[in-house]
Amino acid sequence: MLGNLHYLLYPRSVAIVGASVKEHSVGRIIVENLLKLGFKGEIYPVNPKYSEVLGLKCYASLRDISGEIDVAVVAIPAPKVLGVLEDCGWKKVKHVVIVSSGFGELGELGRTLETRILEIAGRHGMRILGPNTTGILNLENGFTTAFTRIPENVRRGNVSLIVQTGVFAASLLRWIITCENLGLSKVIGLGNKLDIDEVDALNMLKDDEETEVIMMYIEGVKNGREFLKVAREVSREKPIVVVKSGKTKAGWEAARSHTGTLAGRDEIFDAVCRQAGIIRAVDFEDAVDYVKCLSMLPPPKSNSVGVLSYSGAGCVIAADAVEEWGLKLAALKPSTYSKISKLSPPYWSKSNPIDLGPILESEDAKGRVSKVLELVLEDGSVDSIVLIIPVVSGGEEPILWEVGGNISWYKRLISECKAKYPSKPIIVVVNGSKEAIEEAKEALESIGIPVFTSITRAVRALSKIYWWHSRRSV
Amino acid sequence: MLGNLHYLLYPRSVAIVGASVKEHSVGRIIVENLLKLGFKGEIYPVNPKYSEVLGLKCYASLRDISGEIDVAVVAIPAPKVLGVLEDCGWKKVKHVVIVSSGFGELGELGRTLETRILEIAGRHGMRILGPNTTGILNLENGFTTAFTRIPENVRRGNVSLIVQTGVFAASLLRWIITCENLGLSKVIGLGNKLDIDEVDALNMLKDDEETEVIMMYIEGVKNGREFLKVAREVSREKPIVVVKSGKTKAGWEAARSHTGTLAGRDEIFDAVCRQAGIIRAVDFEDAVDYVKCLSMLPPPKSNSVGVLSYSGAGCVIAADAVEEWGLKLAALKPSTYSKISKLSPPYWSKSNPIDLGPILESEDAKGRVSKVLELVLEDGSVDSIVLIIPVVSGGEEPILWEVGGNISWYKRLISECKAKYPSKPIIVVVNGSKEAIEEAKEALESIGIPVFTSITRAVRALSKIYWWHSRRSV
Repeated sequence: MLGNLHYLLYPRSVAIVGASVKEHSVGRIIVENLLKLGFKGEIYPVNPKYSEVLGLKCYASLRDISGEIDVAVVAIPAPKVLGVLEDCGWKKVKHVVIVSSGFGELGELGRTLETRILEIAGRHGMRILGPNTTGILNLENGFTTAFTRIPENVRRGNVSLIVQTGVFAASLLRWIITCENLGLSKVIGLGNKLDIDEVDALNMLKDDEETEVIMMYIEGVKNGREFLKVAREVSREKPIVVVKSGKTKAGWEAARSHTGTLAGRDEIFDAVCRQAGIIRAVDFEDAVDYVKCLSMLPPPKSNSVGVLSYSGAGCVIAADAVEEWGLKLAALKPSTYSKISKLSPPYWSKSNPIDLGPILESEDAKGRVSKVLELVLEDGSVDSIVLIIPVVSGGEEPILWEVGGNISWYKRLISECKAKYPSKPIIVVVNGSKEAIEEAKEALESIGIPVFTSITRAVRALSKIYWWHSRRSV
Repeated sequence: MLGNLHYLLYPRSVAIVGASVKEHSVGRIIVENLLKLGFKGEIYPVNPKYSEVLGLKCYASLRDISGEIDVAVVAIPAPKVLGVLEDCGWKKVKHVVIVSSGFGELGELGRTLETRILEIAGRHGMRILGPNTTGILNLENGFTTAFTRIPENVRRGNVSLIVQTGVFAASLLRWIITCENLGLSKVIGLGNKLDIDEVDALNMLKDDEETEVIMMYIEGVKNGREFLKVAREVSREKPIVVVKSGKTKAGWEAARSHTGTLAGRDEIFDAVCRQAGIIRAVDFEDAVDYVKCLSMLPPPKSNSVGVLSYSGAGCVIAADAVEEWGLKLAALKPSTYSKISKLSPPYWSKSNPIDLGPILESEDAKGRVSKVLELVLEDGSVDSIVLIIPVVSGGEEPILWEVGGNISWYKRLISECKAKYPSKPIIVVVNGSKEAIEEAKEALESIGIPVFTSITRAVRALSKIYWWHSRRSV
């Protein structure tokens, strides 16, 4: 139930005020994106300069359009926005997305403009998204108000983003699409949050069927109490990963000139996150680590981890990370140890983390590694697995042992384990050349196994999803 | 002056005990590596099973070799090592690299073996590297004892590694070679550190002309007082970046079974690092961030940073990071602001971080951005620059503005700035698709400009090199 914001994500018609044919202009890119994404609703370009924009009839004013308008996108200089808003009101437009900048972020004059926008919107019962935002991208129906080009190959999936920024969201999107095997559903850009804010956005995604994981970038929270209430509600069902900047004095000042946001004390926001069950990330790389695991993995039943590593150093680093991030190394059953001992040369460490080194040096290493992995998964004391392996790409020579880096063999093995133990999350850390890392990432993430190159980051991500799941059952 | 360890890096002859023709065997790979890297000294394979290994005459025993042996590499099972060591002594071998595992890391029996190794070595005045290590890789003369295949395309440069691990170092090496534009000089693997330890290794690199930056992975320190003394000395001249695991109880236990190391309390190691001027990194990604900056950049004269970003969010995130990591945003001169104002639409933020957004939207964006960057560099209050830009790859559409992602244009611009202001470090953060990021990294790092994708990580790395440089001048 999206309440009265339903049509912001699912409009039947959209008008673009400031539509343009000028190469690289905001008003052109918005129309291009809608056409490219195959939006099925009505598209009304509005600009007195043109009679046609990209093959669509162009209107001189909103008032000239005869059909109903669910969403108007306003992409014209700030000083002209008030007049257009009156037109919107006259046309009974439901929602207005103001992409233009030049408002509250610039000080007194801009804030006066914003007050007047709110007054007009209130008078006509319109909800405003922005100003100073890319607005909406909905991969379900191809609806977007984004003024940066949306790449063709956006992967659709269970992750939605709420972002308080414009152009940055665009490059963030490119990065997510090309570097990370994350599937997206909705992107909601908030900009200056004059009306619609992070609480509305969370409410929009709360009951959205496709959205299973929410990632947010915000510079501040408009109403802390309300945010806590709604975030707590949402994060019972769907994990929320937040990157919040405006943490320091220097950051607050920069935030004020970016989106006019008052950032507030960081310790308070931290406490809000803990109370609401929000996972806080330091930066986007960090956030994507968490989102990737949340999007792919089942909930770990406990904090008890089994670690297998091809190198002793990997064992040590993983053991440190497990303890530092509040997880614990599973105390494997004596019977598991004795079964592994039968598969390994005598000089193995007989402890968790399990150093696979000696086994990889043995005859029939593949068979033995498979059995060891299964023995650890089978052990009731283990509720998640971190597997650290070397990988080699096609042309490369193996790292030490033949089995060492065989990506397709590992893929088959892990895929079987996943099918057999669907409730135990498996995270894989790969070491090797860039090419091999990319191949392994593609191969394993395509079967829902998150891949990392840093042991520390893998374990930290596991700890965060465990925290979210454990908190949820409280 | 490497003292009596000189020939460990620069041997005139090397014997490989356990040399083999068996595919993927340690004894074969060591010989292969020496041939592939073009080592010019004598190579003596030793193995009673063969008369020839890879075209080289193979000897039944060390005692059958008539020439002098500077380094003997021992790659045979642990129980047979003692006999070979007596042979080494008889042959007056200077240094022995024991790559085999199966010693102190396995407990009592292994420790007894180690005691006997030390006794034999002491009696003959031989220095021992290892056991349980890949040993040496010297890109200057092609000498190596590594039992994992060294890729052909290792880049030679000013970074040397000291690593207390074997196979992990190998995949770390592949990663550094293929993912990072770092040039390497020496790699010293320590293994169980029975004799030669991190202090010896630091001393070896101290006066090494090619080595300008040292990166270490250790699981513990044998003699804390000595380590502090030598590290402090070395790090006055050359920065040392350390990843130390064995931080937690779980980590100590894993370290004991990996290299038999007693790890010691982490707070103490932390204090040692601070006192010695060592830069401590959390993991390898972190360490490479720092090493990259240290290897490429001039020392920042102060902690005063100028930030330029194409997006407002970038400004906020950078401002936070600058404050969090103990740097400060430069207070630009009023004249700099007024000059920038002349190049920018009125709605720019008039503060550092500088939001390039409005300028990028203007006519002649390229000319204006160049001038703004130069104005900031020219400002005496700025001692380093963080430049945040969007990048696009050949076939991709630009992000919003045409100038936005032009990698070759940015390369030219930054290269000119670098030439004009050689004493001010410039770090670049790029946002965009994977392809674009990689292109930008290649282009800019080839001219000595470190490239990051995370603003936080870029600023953190800058703060670490500033810390090292500032501490050095105390």
